[in-house]
Amino acid sequence: MTLTADAGTTTLDLGPARALTCRECGHQIPLAAEFACAECFGPLEVAYEFGNITRAQIEAGPKSIWRYRNLLPVPSDVDAHPNTEPGLTRLVKTDRLAAALGVKSLWVKDDTGNPTHSFKDRVVGVALAAARQLGFRVLACPSTGNLANAVAAAAARAGWQSVVLIPSSLERAKVLTTAVYDGALIAVDGNYDDVNRLATELAAEHEDWAFVNVNVRPYYAEGSKTLGFEVAEQLGWRLPDQVVVPVASGSQLTKVDKGFRELIELGLVDAKEYRVFGAQATGCSPVAAAFKAGHDVVTPVKPDTIARSLAIGAPADGPYVLDVVRRTNGAVENVSDEEVVEGIRLLARTEGIFAETAGGVTVATAKKLIETGQLDPDAETVLLITGDGLKTLDAVEDKIGPRATVPPSSEAVRAALAD
Amino acid sequence: MTLTADAGTTTLDLGPARALTCRECGHQIPLAAEFACAECFGPLEVAYEFGNITRAQIEAGPKSIWRYRNLLPVPSDVDAHPNTEPGLTRLVKTDRLAAALGVKSLWVKDDTGNPTHSFKDRVVGVALAAARQLGFRVLACPSTGNLANAVAAAAARAGWQSVVLIPSSLERAKVLTTAVYDGALIAVDGNYDDVNRLATELAAEHEDWAFVNVNVRPYYAEGSKTLGFEVAEQLGWRLPDQVVVPVASGSQLTKVDKGFRELIELGLVDAKEYRVFGAQATGCSPVAAAFKAGHDVVTPVKPDTIARSLAIGAPADGPYVLDVVRRTNGAVENVSDEEVVEGIRLLARTEGIFAETAGGVTVATAKKLIETGQLDPDAETVLLITGDGLKTLDAVEDKIGPRATVPPSSEAVRAALAD
Repeated sequence: MTLTADAGTTTLDLGPARALTCRECGHQIPLAAEFACAECFGPLEVAYEFGNITRAQIEAGPKSIWRYRNLLPVPSDVDAHPNTEPGLTRLVKTDRLAAALGVKSLWVKDDTGNPTHSFKDRVVGVALAAARQLGFRVLACPSTGNLANAVAAAAARAGWQSVVLIPSSLERAKVLTTAVYDGALIAVDGNYDDVNRLATELAAEHEDWAFVNVNVRPYYAEGSKTLGFEVAEQLGWRLPDQVVVPVASGSQLTKVDKGFRELIELGLVDAKEYRVFGAQATGCSPVAAAFKAGHDVVTPVKPDTIARSLAIGAPADGPYVLDVVRRTNGAVENVSDEEVVEGIRLLARTEGIFAETAGGVTVATAKKLIETGQLDPDAETVLLITGDGLKTLDAVEDKIGPRATVPPSSEAVRAALAD
Repeated sequence: MTLTADAGTTTLDLGPARALTCRECGHQIPLAAEFACAECFGPLEVAYEFGNITRAQIEAGPKSIWRYRNLLPVPSDVDAHPNTEPGLTRLVKTDRLAAALGVKSLWVKDDTGNPTHSFKDRVVGVALAAARQLGFRVLACPSTGNLANAVAAAAARAGWQSVVLIPSSLERAKVLTTAVYDGALIAVDGNYDDVNRLATELAAEHEDWAFVNVNVRPYYAEGSKTLGFEVAEQLGWRLPDQVVVPVASGSQLTKVDKGFRELIELGLVDAKEYRVFGAQATGCSPVAAAFKAGHDVVTPVKPDTIARSLAIGAPADGPYVLDVVRRTNGAVENVSDEEVVEGIRLLARTEGIFAETAGGVTVATAKKLIETGQLDPDAETVLLITGDGLKTLDAVEDKIGPRATVPPSSEAVRAALAD
């Protein structure tokens, strides 16, 4: 299982990162390109020794995730290397959406503003920085969309080779927005599970290929903490009462929670009890099912939903999602594909933000959590919108269009508007 | 021609704006919703009385164009009203593109990070703020794409009605990304010229409709100054030596220049001689043609280019573009549609930035300006990338795709990569 790349004789500088620790058995190993515990096969996570970190220090940093470099497994000069400079996206006060949902104080973290328009730029940015230190020279991933875009763009910007594996059935738009960066984009005859297995096989065979979500996953995953950091900083260095996070592998939700806890531990925000909620599409809701059944394990499902970026039937971090939502008095809820489309449209109509299907899942789930009394409408709430509607136009295609088609006369326009 | 909306009895607060001045005859009128001089029919422009403005003041402002509110025709509390918070997009040091083009120091201003992924969010943001003060209650425009997205989104966020007119032949993707915001999107049977004429007619008939690019155009246009402001601030409060700007109506180029001059006048940057270059697609290059012929007037053309967002055959600000490039020792150059696609691909391949066709025009024009000795390769240069490739996928569709389609085996992947 060891996939350590040749780091040469250079000293490994991953900033405050000190070791990898198994989340299951606690076994610790030195920093390396490993992702599974040699003792128990549990997932490895980055362990840190943070120095003294102040708000002023962070605020004086770059206008990207690198302002949090002292909280990430990256070298202190990370922003000196060419990268896509993701992060510090808008946190928008969404009063019209709040009114529509019947909540008092609502914010949307709008990650559509990232370089390739999804939160994946954050995790790929951290993966690339760590991969450089670990001695890799090729950036790779299996993906069905957002991750493919982010990896191909980040590699292009850094001057690295990329190898991106996609199912050959992928929509042409997602293929084009990856292919344009001119890395090695390989279409694989098979479904996403086939592509994933192939990636793990290739990672084992190619010591210089950093598969961001496979052999450098512990570093990659830490990038999602920056969503939590930014929410807190943008609220004026305080935590919200409640946060709703979409769940695919579950990694993002657990890392937002980890980010919040680190800020408390470091004294950067006041300690408080916050609640973390997970959002899934019913067509791929294994974590919601486990939560509702009171189970600790997550039973895999075969995904069938329009929310393809969340369609992971066997979510690696599912059990940890359950831990977080139970510890914080949150919940995991799920919504139908129809509700997903309504969620996209509600957010667009009220706030001018066009989210991809995953964002529709988040908005619709928030609605359901409020209606079922699980989410407190009087508590300050943040919704994470992690990807862009331009990439999933097919989801809304049949539902929307011009109000009317008219001849070029002002009378005709007025008649159309009066209808 | 007077289209003054009912501003009620409230005092008009448009910040430092003091009057509208005719660019042709200098005739001055009070601030109002007018766009053409009553004396000579010349275009009106906002005149200011700036107070004392410091770098520190600006830097302490919001992370959006509103940090420059004291340089725009908007009230000082502009960011208290819901808006899409555009601007402060990345200024990226593009060393790999610089090497490919053979220039020493190159930056890309990447406006794909705006809320609806083009610079139009800037101008619409200013138009909305001014329209609110001028007493309008409906935001409207004729458009073929980016402007439609920006107007519909901004109106949704503000809780305003919107009326967006598009040609009925518009691509489905651009229709959808406007329709999703649920304003009154009206498809008009006719070409863009028909739609434009219809907009002017409707603006005259509906006193409460603010057509952003018609009856509130003087305010709207000022939004483009923020591109110049941001470039200067992000360079560390100094102006670049050269800037390359795409030319559609020509407004953006003249406003970037105006922004630079205002910064010098206010002592926010050191005075210096900078050069402004315009970029057009050959299929719609009336300004480049006039520049090359040494003419002061621009002869309209019938556009035929894939760079549809630049396809304005009779550019209103064409003569002013000629003034600026001649005064600053710049030029206007044009490139073929093939070069446009190559420009898109070059930027994507070297820097991981996926621009729309207008961005391809800018990159390809910069290349041609260097090759023909018009742009100094040793001087610091900034390229303005003003829109996103996700909206013009059709331009690259036939040129790019997966490197190979293979069965799910690592041998097959290796074989494909070795080819």
